[in-house]
Amino acid sequence: MAEIAVLGFGTVGSGVVELIDRNQEQILKGVPEGIHVKYILDLRDFPDSPYADRVVHDFDIILADPEISVICETMGGREPAFSFSRKALEKGISVCTSNKELVAAHGPELIETARAHRCSYLFEASVGGGIPVLRPISEALIQEDITSIIGILNGTTNYIMDKMEKEDMTFEDALSLAQQKGYAERNPEADVEGHDACRKIAILSSLMTGKTVRYEDIPCEGISRITKADFGYARNMRMAIKLLGMSRRNADGSLSVRTAPFLVPEDHPLHSVTGVFNAVFVHGNCVDDLMFYGRGAGKFPTASAVAADVVECCRCRGSHVEVRWSDETLALADPSEESRQFFVRVGAASADAARAAFGDAAQTVQSDSPAEDEYAFVTGELTEKEILDRIGRLQDVRACIRLLDLGK
Amino acid sequence: MAEIAVLGFGTVGSGVVELIDRNQEQILKGVPEGIHVKYILDLRDFPDSPYADRVVHDFDIILADPEISVICETMGGREPAFSFSRKALEKGISVCTSNKELVAAHGPELIETARAHRCSYLFEASVGGGIPVLRPISEALIQEDITSIIGILNGTTNYIMDKMEKEDMTFEDALSLAQQKGYAERNPEADVEGHDACRKIAILSSLMTGKTVRYEDIPCEGISRITKADFGYARNMRMAIKLLGMSRRNADGSLSVRTAPFLVPEDHPLHSVTGVFNAVFVHGNCVDDLMFYGRGAGKFPTASAVAADVVECCRCRGSHVEVRWSDETLALADPSEESRQFFVRVGAASADAARAAFGDAAQTVQSDSPAEDEYAFVTGELTEKEILDRIGRLQDVRACIRLLDLGK
Repeated sequence: MAEIAVLGFGTVGSGVVELIDRNQEQILKGVPEGIHVKYILDLRDFPDSPYADRVVHDFDIILADPEISVICETMGGREPAFSFSRKALEKGISVCTSNKELVAAHGPELIETARAHRCSYLFEASVGGGIPVLRPISEALIQEDITSIIGILNGTTNYIMDKMEKEDMTFEDALSLAQQKGYAERNPEADVEGHDACRKIAILSSLMTGKTVRYEDIPCEGISRITKADFGYARNMRMAIKLLGMSRRNADGSLSVRTAPFLVPEDHPLHSVTGVFNAVFVHGNCVDDLMFYGRGAGKFPTASAVAADVVECCRCRGSHVEVRWSDETLALADPSEESRQFFVRVGAASADAARAAFGDAAQTVQSDSPAEDEYAFVTGELTEKEILDRIGRLQDVRACIRLLDLGK
Repeated sequence: MAEIAVLGFGTVGSGVVELIDRNQEQILKGVPEGIHVKYILDLRDFPDSPYADRVVHDFDIILADPEISVICETMGGREPAFSFSRKALEKGISVCTSNKELVAAHGPELIETARAHRCSYLFEASVGGGIPVLRPISEALIQEDITSIIGILNGTTNYIMDKMEKEDMTFEDALSLAQQKGYAERNPEADVEGHDACRKIAILSSLMTGKTVRYEDIPCEGISRITKADFGYARNMRMAIKLLGMSRRNADGSLSVRTAPFLVPEDHPLHSVTGVFNAVFVHGNCVDDLMFYGRGAGKFPTASAVAADVVECCRCRGSHVEVRWSDETLALADPSEESRQFFVRVGAASADAARAAFGDAAQTVQSDSPAEDEYAFVTGELTEKEILDRIGRLQDVRACIRLLDLGK
């Protein structure tokens, strides 16, 4: 029996413990001696849980037990998750985690520690919840020159925008519905302002390039400025508005990475990713377009990805499962040079100024809802610098949203 | 340098040879000594090819060369592909293939031969072209109890039906367009009659269960009876018609497998899989819904999947990459007991008889095209036996198409 420990008995941690019991028959296919959760580390006690007798409060008990070969770090946050993970790896205990904050901040360091101690640091659950996407990128697509990754990486914001689009709700109403349903936190900032999606595209970009893409270097814009009115125009253009994490190789070999809401045309596979689902769209030079779709959060989907990593660590015990991500920081392309089309709305009084600023390339668009007293249009292809400059000259700019181009 | 041989210098085989040159830098990440194509086996010569000097006509030359560690079998068909593959595996040479016909017919036998000789038989490219789907099912989802797999597994038929839906083309016109574009063979039977999709769902079902699902046991219906008129109703119901390979675990633990055209509701992720793309929708008991999407055919996408398997074989040289698929035949559930809703069209003269046969559960549906003199409706939930029985009592039945239920 492979003995493991779970750190943090919250939503994901309890999911891992339950999954390992429930799907032991499946797990035996990969780990014939079976997997057993020996310890659960938490500050709290869980007297009513069937796993009450496995709960411990002191990490050193786990560290001192030579039987433990894998730890699931489902605590979240930087500390003590970082120290615990590093100590475990230094003892040759593999660590599997769903903690995107820690992975985005200390991934390469923990991978290196794992390599040095012939164990593994795996984090499939940190991006896209239950979707197997990091392992396919690292393994099944190793022969590909991956040129772009575009993801719907945050289920909360996707749910909110889906409600705004389909049910014509305001941002505030959709957010409070998401909170009622348990999809959004009481403090929704990390989701709504794009920080969560930004960490995930940082992780994906790092695996894509093998270097470290720092999430602090990625321009990040959330969805809190998207309004009901924007969706009136989006629907009429047969587009959806999605918060995307995007990473693209430019012609000069540099990488542009960004997190922002985008208008996504109906023909793009990401258009139909609705509700709390996530999807990661990958373009490789030979395989062309791929998409991986599934539940980006939730107790059992996330636990499933953690459990997959545990099985992999148990199968490869005594050796290091290779993850190509060095601590060399990748300098990103200048974001102000990125070029694309934009959707812009300005108050009626600014319409003439907008026409003058954007010229003939601007195409007027209509809303499917009662028209407001404003002028809405899609620009020609402009750099971020150009749009900022032109928008800056106008009064009463009500929206400026990027368009996702097909075929890039 | 890992030396390999490619059997068959057709579309996929030449793609593999070119990819290995073009993406050698990526391949080095997985196989640090690099991969080199030493031989290309084909009946023809290719004097104008840059690879002309590697072409041989005698398989024994390859078999006798102790440097060869992996063979790519991209010949297609049963023989001599089967004999060549078996002989290679018996010498400890791993085989990677895109040959779904051979895999569906002899998969477990060749896997067993590979196991016995400490080498591997891998076939990612045999299902879903470039989409990494077999390896995720075998590895990243090993901890899951997979309860259903539903796939758009044939790009040719998906392209034809997409043209019929979007451009109101007849089946014959859409087929001949597909032939002009090189998406359909001159003899399109294997695609159009569902045999190709049927072999692929047989492979997926076998990997899902670990036993052999024989494609001969799977009820298989193609798309040649789907007409322009059917799409008029489908569009009005906001559904698409897709040829699906479907494998579902029933409440009693038995497995129902079928290949047939289905009406797919707009809310289902498979609905938006258009053109020549393929997608495999998987439901696991913990991970819930997943979908893998990408190019199901084509030179480089398919070559990419073959190359991924080659890299895996090179990384694991001297050991067997486990594929859980035994030669024990799985007895499938009685297909006549499957239960679902159906879309039915009958001539006007049969309308009363149809109303009598299907009762109040039948819901009339309209076409978005000029109405024909007929009665079209969606039935309540019926078994295959019941629908056959009721349809059998009617004259002038113009269509009977299954509905894909959401949430199963």
